[in-house]
Amino acid sequence: MKFISKIKITLRKGILDVQGKAVENALHSIEFPMISNVRIGKFVELEIEANDKNQAYELVDAACKKLIANPIIEDFEIELFEV
Amino acid sequence: MKFISKIKITLRKGILDVQGKAVENALHSIEFPMISNVRIGKFVELEIEANDKNQAYELVDAACKKLIANPIIEDFEIELFEV
Repeated sequence: MKFISKIKITLRKGILDVQGKAVENALHSIEFPMISNVRIGKFVELEIEANDKNQAYELVDAACKKLIANPIIEDFEIELFEV
Repeated sequence: MKFISKIKITLRKGILDVQGKAVENALHSIEFPMISNVRIGKFVELEIEANDKNQAYELVDAACKKLIANPIIEDFEIELFEV
């Protein structure tokens, strides 16, 4: 079976987001002073072949922990859809 | 009123995703040959002060077009939640 997975990767609370801070400052300097607390993460989409949804989830979770995300400073959230 | 916005930014179809391809090759070289079509985008979270949800949406949409995303090569999808 084939699945599509969408993964949101966010910096953990307490980790300083320098990229987000830079974007926030840039927004304030144009016409968006009402925007605050900008945090920038990653959004990964991938396809995966697996026997069932559970196996697909386990594989994507393992791939995130090993390579896609950095679990020391990032949290991730996995969505799975059968195609 | 205060809103939280979550924005998914993805490379448009047809735009070569070199970062995604590199991650895919790395996944294939460890124990994940069943993963394919890796595409890497951005996931932005921010807070915004606005009079109502429509105004908040318009402001976030304008900020994405002007600074947060690159509309020539990226698509974006905005979610808004009142806090």
